[in-house]
Amino acid sequence: MAVNLHTPNPAHLLPVGGVRLGVTEAGIRKAERRDLSVIELAEGSRVAGVFTRNRFCAAPVQVCKEHLSSAAIRALVINTGNANAGTGEAGLVAARVTCTALAAQMGITAAQVLPFSTGVILEPLPVDRLVAGLPRAIANLCADGWFDAAHAIMTTDTLAKAVSRQVQVGGKTVTLTGISKGAGMIRPNMATMLGFLACDAAVAQPVLEQLVTEAADLSFNSITVDGDTSTNDSFILIATGAADNAEIAATNGADYQALRDAVVEVSIALAQAIVRDGEGATKFMTITVEGGADRDECRKVAYAVAHSPLVKTAFFASDPNLGRILAAIGYAGIDDLEVSKLRVWLGNPEESVLVAEHGGRAVSYLEDAGARIMKHAELSVRIDLARGQAAATVWTCDFSYDYVKINADYRS
Amino acid sequence: MAVNLHTPNPAHLLPVGGVRLGVTEAGIRKAERRDLSVIELAEGSRVAGVFTRNRFCAAPVQVCKEHLSSAAIRALVINTGNANAGTGEAGLVAARVTCTALAAQMGITAAQVLPFSTGVILEPLPVDRLVAGLPRAIANLCADGWFDAAHAIMTTDTLAKAVSRQVQVGGKTVTLTGISKGAGMIRPNMATMLGFLACDAAVAQPVLEQLVTEAADLSFNSITVDGDTSTNDSFILIATGAADNAEIAATNGADYQALRDAVVEVSIALAQAIVRDGEGATKFMTITVEGGADRDECRKVAYAVAHSPLVKTAFFASDPNLGRILAAIGYAGIDDLEVSKLRVWLGNPEESVLVAEHGGRAVSYLEDAGARIMKHAELSVRIDLARGQAAATVWTCDFSYDYVKINADYRS
Repeated sequence: MAVNLHTPNPAHLLPVGGVRLGVTEAGIRKAERRDLSVIELAEGSRVAGVFTRNRFCAAPVQVCKEHLSSAAIRALVINTGNANAGTGEAGLVAARVTCTALAAQMGITAAQVLPFSTGVILEPLPVDRLVAGLPRAIANLCADGWFDAAHAIMTTDTLAKAVSRQVQVGGKTVTLTGISKGAGMIRPNMATMLGFLACDAAVAQPVLEQLVTEAADLSFNSITVDGDTSTNDSFILIATGAADNAEIAATNGADYQALRDAVVEVSIALAQAIVRDGEGATKFMTITVEGGADRDECRKVAYAVAHSPLVKTAFFASDPNLGRILAAIGYAGIDDLEVSKLRVWLGNPEESVLVAEHGGRAVSYLEDAGARIMKHAELSVRIDLARGQAAATVWTCDFSYDYVKINADYRS
Repeated sequence: MAVNLHTPNPAHLLPVGGVRLGVTEAGIRKAERRDLSVIELAEGSRVAGVFTRNRFCAAPVQVCKEHLSSAAIRALVINTGNANAGTGEAGLVAARVTCTALAAQMGITAAQVLPFSTGVILEPLPVDRLVAGLPRAIANLCADGWFDAAHAIMTTDTLAKAVSRQVQVGGKTVTLTGISKGAGMIRPNMATMLGFLACDAAVAQPVLEQLVTEAADLSFNSITVDGDTSTNDSFILIATGAADNAEIAATNGADYQALRDAVVEVSIALAQAIVRDGEGATKFMTITVEGGADRDECRKVAYAVAHSPLVKTAFFASDPNLGRILAAIGYAGIDDLEVSKLRVWLGNPEESVLVAEHGGRAVSYLEDAGARIMKHAELSVRIDLARGQAAATVWTCDFSYDYVKINADYRS
């Protein structure tokens, strides 16, 4: 049961000039399942990405990094059903063969292709079936293929995830459309968070690279379902230039700011969709930490709260268990934290109450108010460290019986 | 259901010269429940302790640290039912009043008393009922009170935890008896891991202080149930000197080594008992990491595996899910880890098989062997990082439906 997440309306997904998408059934792992997607980018498109920091990073991630640094990217190819991770040298060969085969059919070079895989790990990629499916995916390429692609990249997601926005940049209308997949930060068999966001703005490469890092930091790198990090996580930002705006060549102007805000907004929506569809999720939680000395310590505290199984089970039970939140703040790793100065609020979209201050429960706090707040599916914890001006927000979901069921039963 | 843990046999718990224990029902939280223990130490006893690093450390932990550094400890007082944590200034006063009241009745000073509390947090300690119970606990003091004390310090533990050993030190027989409690590293309402280990050896104070740190590092600081750290965790090592051995004044002799080995052995048994009684545990897992550049990185990897909800649910399901173990090793935070050199074995007390090498599944590994191993309740994961000579071991349990049930239902 996803939390406040619905199938995207195909009519609300806007084509992005310079981008065409095609999907097909390649039978990678299961028959009669769309499992292969190709995204074609017009000449002149710029592409930037951020990838998993897991040392067991998958073969396609390694190839993506090589290709991004060596050529102008013209196509992306994404398969589900197999992650091509933990596959050693053979996995690297399979990823390269995929790029070579697609390049030959599209009249580009292999280095202009980025490969992505998600699915079972430690199994050889059936690259023959993948390559055999490419002509059908290419034949299906069309500008309004976003809805189909959002479905074709799903593994155990319960709903497709896609978002579009338009924004004025330098007097031109810029369109952004993105898709994402993932229901845990990792499912090592059906692994991986993937995010693809295209816009038709004209953006210089160094600016795009800074923007993808900033957007990832505020979105995909600010969520957690279970604290695990996948071997294949990738987030790709594409700028085709078809909107014909004056190229954004610096990060300090109004054009950059307008585009940046829209990219961050879409990225956050795509990232939140993953949490809303988190394994067994029944609650969507926003953990905000403010008043920190720097952003890093705010993130530490937010993640300590967001990762605590005790906090997550309490939210599942709709139990305003303040002790568990305070204890998680206490062990987050800030050695000189003064707990007597801390303040903590619990809230939902309708109300927010101060629950802790002076090192313990707030005198004004009534258990009834906490219980009333916790009945909502959208909850917030706001923590003021009272040490500085920095802030950070992390999104997570609760920890339910179904999480254990999904992960204990997954391979059986 | 605890994993391979049984009620201690009272006949196997040996009195320790210089130590008497008395328990009573003080009605701290529930009626007709032994919830107050006093441990009396003979004059000349030496005491050392290690405590939680949680910034929200409880009032009694703060008082313990003060008293340990200022006076010769002669008594410990332990209550269950209330953790006296998150209680601000009033909590500190309550802990001091407890010490003062016990000291007056025992003819010692308040600074010679160490207070410990475990139970509900964020609630005022009912210090009046606690103080009213002290005379009864004192009246019950006896040398063979260990079995009763092991029960009286329990909160939601399903079984009492106590261990005795004898060892020859400098030609004398030294007796060690210890008790512990805890079923998660934290239960912020019924919180806390507590361990008390007494021996009758004569040990110089600086040596005892080094020994308690070393033993805690290898035992209580090497376990995890859910990764949370309590506000009240305490481990106390007592040496009364009643065995009349030549005082151990240095850490480089045979006497120290003999005592050290026995203290570590008992500490590990007491710490493992906490994991075996872990919330919802059905499996007991030993994670050993060797071949590390230093002990710290070995512990990082071991804890990444031991904390991963995906690894823990796979063990609950008896699923030899190698991908989850490899992924956890990959995100443990060793930036220059060469995954192609890693080797991983899966084992139980009867057999052990190589499951991963060269960055993927070992060619010799058969899924049947993994499945056969996973049927046991005692399992091991051994990881060779192939980077150096350091090693570390961490003990943990699996993650079951009952963990969620216990923690979601806890306050309802």
